[in-house]
Amino acid sequence: MSRPNRLRYAARLNAFKVKGGTVADMIAGAGRVGGLSAADLNYPDHFAAHDPGTLSGLLTDQGLALNGLAMRYYTEDGFRLGAFTHPDPATRRAAIDLTRRGIDACAAMGGSQMTLWMGQDGFDYSFQADYARMWDNTVAAIAEVADHNPTIDIAVEYKPNEPRAHALMPDLATTLLALDEVARPNTGVTLDFAHMLYAGEMPAKAAMLAARKSRILGLHLNDGYGKRDDGLIAGSVHPVQTVELLVAMARSGYAGVIYFDTFPDHSGIDPVAEARANIRLTDRMLDLAHRLADDPALAAAQSRQDAVAATALVMAALLGE
Amino acid sequence: MSRPNRLRYAARLNAFKVKGGTVADMIAGAGRVGGLSAADLNYPDHFAAHDPGTLSGLLTDQGLALNGLAMRYYTEDGFRLGAFTHPDPATRRAAIDLTRRGIDACAAMGGSQMTLWMGQDGFDYSFQADYARMWDNTVAAIAEVADHNPTIDIAVEYKPNEPRAHALMPDLATTLLALDEVARPNTGVTLDFAHMLYAGEMPAKAAMLAARKSRILGLHLNDGYGKRDDGLIAGSVHPVQTVELLVAMARSGYAGVIYFDTFPDHSGIDPVAEARANIRLTDRMLDLAHRLADDPALAAAQSRQDAVAATALVMAALLGE
Amino acid sequence: MSRPNRLRYAARLNAFKVKGGTVADMIAGAGRVGGLSAADLNYPDHFAAHDPGTLSGLLTDQGLALNGLAMRYYTEDGFRLGAFTHPDPATRRAAIDLTRRGIDACAAMGGSQMTLWMGQDGFDYSFQADYARMWDNTVAAIAEVADHNPTIDIAVEYKPNEPRAHALMPDLATTLLALDEVARPNTGVTLDFAHMLYAGEMPAKAAMLAARKSRILGLHLNDGYGKRDDGLIAGSVHPVQTVELLVAMARSGYAGVIYFDTFPDHSGIDPVAEARANIRLTDRMLDLAHRLADDPALAAAQSRQDAVAATALVMAALLGE
Amino acid sequence: MSRPNRLRYAARLNAFKVKGGTVADMIAGAGRVGGLSAADLNYPDHFAAHDPGTLSGLLTDQGLALNGLAMRYYTEDGFRLGAFTHPDPATRRAAIDLTRRGIDACAAMGGSQMTLWMGQDGFDYSFQADYARMWDNTVAAIAEVADHNPTIDIAVEYKPNEPRAHALMPDLATTLLALDEVARPNTGVTLDFAHMLYAGEMPAKAAMLAARKSRILGLHLNDGYGKRDDGLIAGSVHPVQTVELLVAMARSGYAGVIYFDTFPDHSGIDPVAEARANIRLTDRMLDLAHRLADDPALAAAQSRQDAVAATALVMAALLGE
Repeated sequence: MSRPNRLRYAARLNAFKVKGGTVADMIAGAGRVGGLSAADLNYPDHFAAHDPGTLSGLLTDQGLALNGLAMRYYTEDGFRLGAFTHPDPATRRAAIDLTRRGIDACAAMGGSQMTLWMGQDGFDYSFQADYARMWDNTVAAIAEVADHNPTIDIAVEYKPNEPRAHALMPDLATTLLALDEVARPNTGVTLDFAHMLYAGEMPAKAAMLAARKSRILGLHLNDGYGKRDDGLIAGSVHPVQTVELLVAMARSGYAGVIYFDTFPDHSGIDPVAEARANIRLTDRMLDLAHRLADDPALAAAQSRQDAVAATALVMAALLGE
Repeated sequence: MSRPNRLRYAARLNAFKVKGGTVADMIAGAGRVGGLSAADLNYPDHFAAHDPGTLSGLLTDQGLALNGLAMRYYTEDGFRLGAFTHPDPATRRAAIDLTRRGIDACAAMGGSQMTLWMGQDGFDYSFQADYARMWDNTVAAIAEVADHNPTIDIAVEYKPNEPRAHALMPDLATTLLALDEVARPNTGVTLDFAHMLYAGEMPAKAAMLAARKSRILGLHLNDGYGKRDDGLIAGSVHPVQTVELLVAMARSGYAGVIYFDTFPDHSGIDPVAEARANIRLTDRMLDLAHRLADDPALAAAQSRQDAVAATALVMAALLGE
Repeated sequence: MSRPNRLRYAARLNAFKVKGGTVADMIAGAGRVGGLSAADLNYPDHFAAHDPGTLSGLLTDQGLALNGLAMRYYTEDGFRLGAFTHPDPATRRAAIDLTRRGIDACAAMGGSQMTLWMGQDGFDYSFQADYARMWDNTVAAIAEVADHNPTIDIAVEYKPNEPRAHALMPDLATTLLALDEVARPNTGVTLDFAHMLYAGEMPAKAAMLAARKSRILGLHLNDGYGKRDDGLIAGSVHPVQTVELLVAMARSGYAGVIYFDTFPDHSGIDPVAEARANIRLTDRMLDLAHRLADDPALAAAQSRQDAVAATALVMAALLGE
Repeated sequence: MSRPNRLRYAARLNAFKVKGGTVADMIAGAGRVGGLSAADLNYPDHFAAHDPGTLSGLLTDQGLALNGLAMRYYTEDGFRLGAFTHPDPATRRAAIDLTRRGIDACAAMGGSQMTLWMGQDGFDYSFQADYARMWDNTVAAIAEVADHNPTIDIAVEYKPNEPRAHALMPDLATTLLALDEVARPNTGVTLDFAHMLYAGEMPAKAAMLAARKSRILGLHLNDGYGKRDDGLIAGSVHPVQTVELLVAMARSGYAGVIYFDTFPDHSGIDPVAEARANIRLTDRMLDLAHRLADDPALAAAQSRQDAVAATALVMAALLGE
């Protein structure tokens, strides 16, 4: 496998939030990191203080390309019980229309994709929800926003729970079933490592399925303990599974951005130093992935499902002989 | 909703195993329960001491109809590294041929379905497995066994892990993706309550998806703590989620057997008394499900996703006012 | 067992928060419920707008007795990396002094206990923390705040994680080890049902250990799916384990408040209706607990560890025959 | 920190089981590995075919020192409902007496410790168990077996569940509470990495507590996904947490055996090759632990709880710059 063109890195802008500051300060923070070349903006909140043109200029000033936008359906906007699945048709309509405006903003800034994390679309109690209606509403809403602008890709980011006790789209396979019904070419998935872990998935296997059944439009790296969305530095807990995922991404032909979806702000960590640690570790893990993807001895071990030989090769590459 | 015809109950025959006994003793044990009307046999182990004709006679003597057969791919038969996914094509062929012989035995006994729990088809380590090959082999194998006898239904029973650290078919949605590729009308899924819990699923939501995307061919009731396959008495830990699942099953038109997949033998519990407890509790939960399915106040609460109203109604039905 | 004097109920005041309102509005909301007779105030945030005397008056107006105060170590006060375990001694001192002022406020209002939830006292990464120093600092801090006013009980509320990936006091047994070192008679634990579930504990067993090794100073009822702090209506998911816990609490002689630590505000649920559902269900579960605690057949089944007989009795009491 | 004397390695003998073979074949298998210098025998099953003298000779022939014995309370011996906690006093007595005979066999062979894994001592259902009686019986039984021969150390190995749905001794802190009541100097704990993971523990923190409150008598290395006892090669999933644990073990002064409690036999893996992989990886991880334990920059980062600096140092040591 020839080394893919260097993947671009992005980081979560809210990690750079400063008290009393605006998104301009966050973008400046991301710029200080030094190794980031792309950014995502949240819609609508990151557009509260600045128009799309101003935001484009702020990104350019910091050497950051716009990767895309990510929708946020905030409770203060009436989406606490759901966005695309809200029991009230008027609220569902508001969620779709807000997404369409977000897609317009994305297009206006020259972005190419909108990420949908439908965090409120879930349920907490048995007997609370009409699952079939919620499913149909979600499929129809994704189709409608995908049709709004066929040149903008719609990436669905799944997550098992939080804020709701159960999400309607908790894991990759459920998301693929929904996207199969949506049946629009400009749709796909965003894989988030920590979400995959606490969905009980083997990340590289999820990437294989995602690439075969749909399109991988985004990759969020981070790490955690497999119980919740810990938001730790990429590779800091599960380097082996992360490298295996990177091999699977390379095999899938992924050429998009690696976005560090980490939460240094939750634990009082300097976000600039933390982003640099993500970059340094991921550079190293990409090198390992590149090397392992081309290793005929590893391919031979896998072809006979030889766990000892495969593990010995991989761990020697990681830890040294 | 009119009450469906009374569902038949079956219990796991191995729960009735006695030291030095054969499957005849297990069938006699199931007969002693008094409320069971169907049974599943495992293939090939339950056919070791008796031929299909003899087994049919033993079941009839106890008033038990044959629900179907369930495949077991035992490690002593060479399937420790996998059955349909084994790296060696000869072993994969052996697994398929064994399944075909099982389907023949099922047909010879007048049974209508074969359950596949592909317990060894999984992986333990990162970099051990070629997930894409395993997937393709599994899809092809299910298609081949489905084609072997189109009058016998093939039910896939998923489970997150155990014996392997990760199963290839760990949850409902992944299984539905595979069955969509299999594309045979005589295929479907078997839902197991404890497996659903530790797959992180909301059982009633899984039943909705299963019924819409495939066919529900089997229902295994039991209970546990959502961490592993505990095999406890149905309803003993999660009565509310079990009743919600029974409502969803009724809405799906399920008219098959309720099979108690519980493990009294693991904890020194008398299996006859335990089976009676399963029956008594499930009778009561089916009554509750029947009542709740017809409750217009509950339907109204669900239509506005009103968790408090729905929970109040459901808990009053369960616990009394 | 004679029925204990009716336990008092309290609810989480923040559930009644209204936009732009103060704690006075929350207290008024709790008053509207109709079945609550006690309340906890958070320190320092609930004291931002009103002095202790005013707060006492507001509670009295709504017929609410002060159960106690609960400390909050907010990130904006510098506690993001820890309170009692913060690496900077000055911040640790600030946390202790804040707690002492909270205890003074509690005493001034006639309250009898201070609950410590040391949410920031944990760690996210391997190699980040000096566990021994954190442990020693925590033990010393609890001892110091316990000594500040020996007439005020100090209740430690443990929780596995969130906000930190790992809490220093994640479960009951760890908390008991720390309290044993603290060795102050005015210390004990607060049990939270959802925390117990996702700590992997059997709640009634935890209550047994807590009562034997320390003092149970508080009981938070709620429910969830055993993966995180879901904050659902008490008994709505795990009624059997909740009733078993209530039996254990009665046997321990607990005569304190039952506090509903639920999050209706997280899912757009009316907090007044939700609190009423908590009260109604808990009334019913206390009745069941009272009945089961006195049942000689259940005691006999337990004495031979007979799961089938015990489960049959309990489920008949819950679901009816 | 000066490098401790090289720790000895042992492996699980049952991993080397061959069909129709005896423990002599298992010992021969362990001998073929080449880097093992100690072994544990299970009592009573490994003593079925050979007396202690013969077993000693078999071990010596392979260059293996006896590390100790490990009790097994088998269901066929009547312990399915419990050993030290069985409801029948006669069965509890049988469990204690069996353990005493095991201790005698251990002493006769010159061994120094007996490991107790009380796998059947737990419960499956709410209301099944009298937790207080089970606790008291367990404390008394451990005290009695500890008193049987004060020169033999008694190591308690905790595990969250399996075979029972809940173990009485599920985690370190609960075990320490029990050992505190036992109050015998010749007692302590055995730490098992995979058990710690699925108990939700941070292994290095558990080691700190174990060393402060009791004695660490054994260390079982392996790995897994934090959901069950996967029995994978040490370091293959969680190398960072394993190295942190090894640093904590070194700081505690641990000079015992590292026992690889892995299950190659469960997944058709050659146990000799697997044991060699465990040794190679653990050698490398011990080197890393030795280097990190002495690193003043890491100590400085920890003293200010600086996760980014600590993680950067650790990951550079693991993965290279």
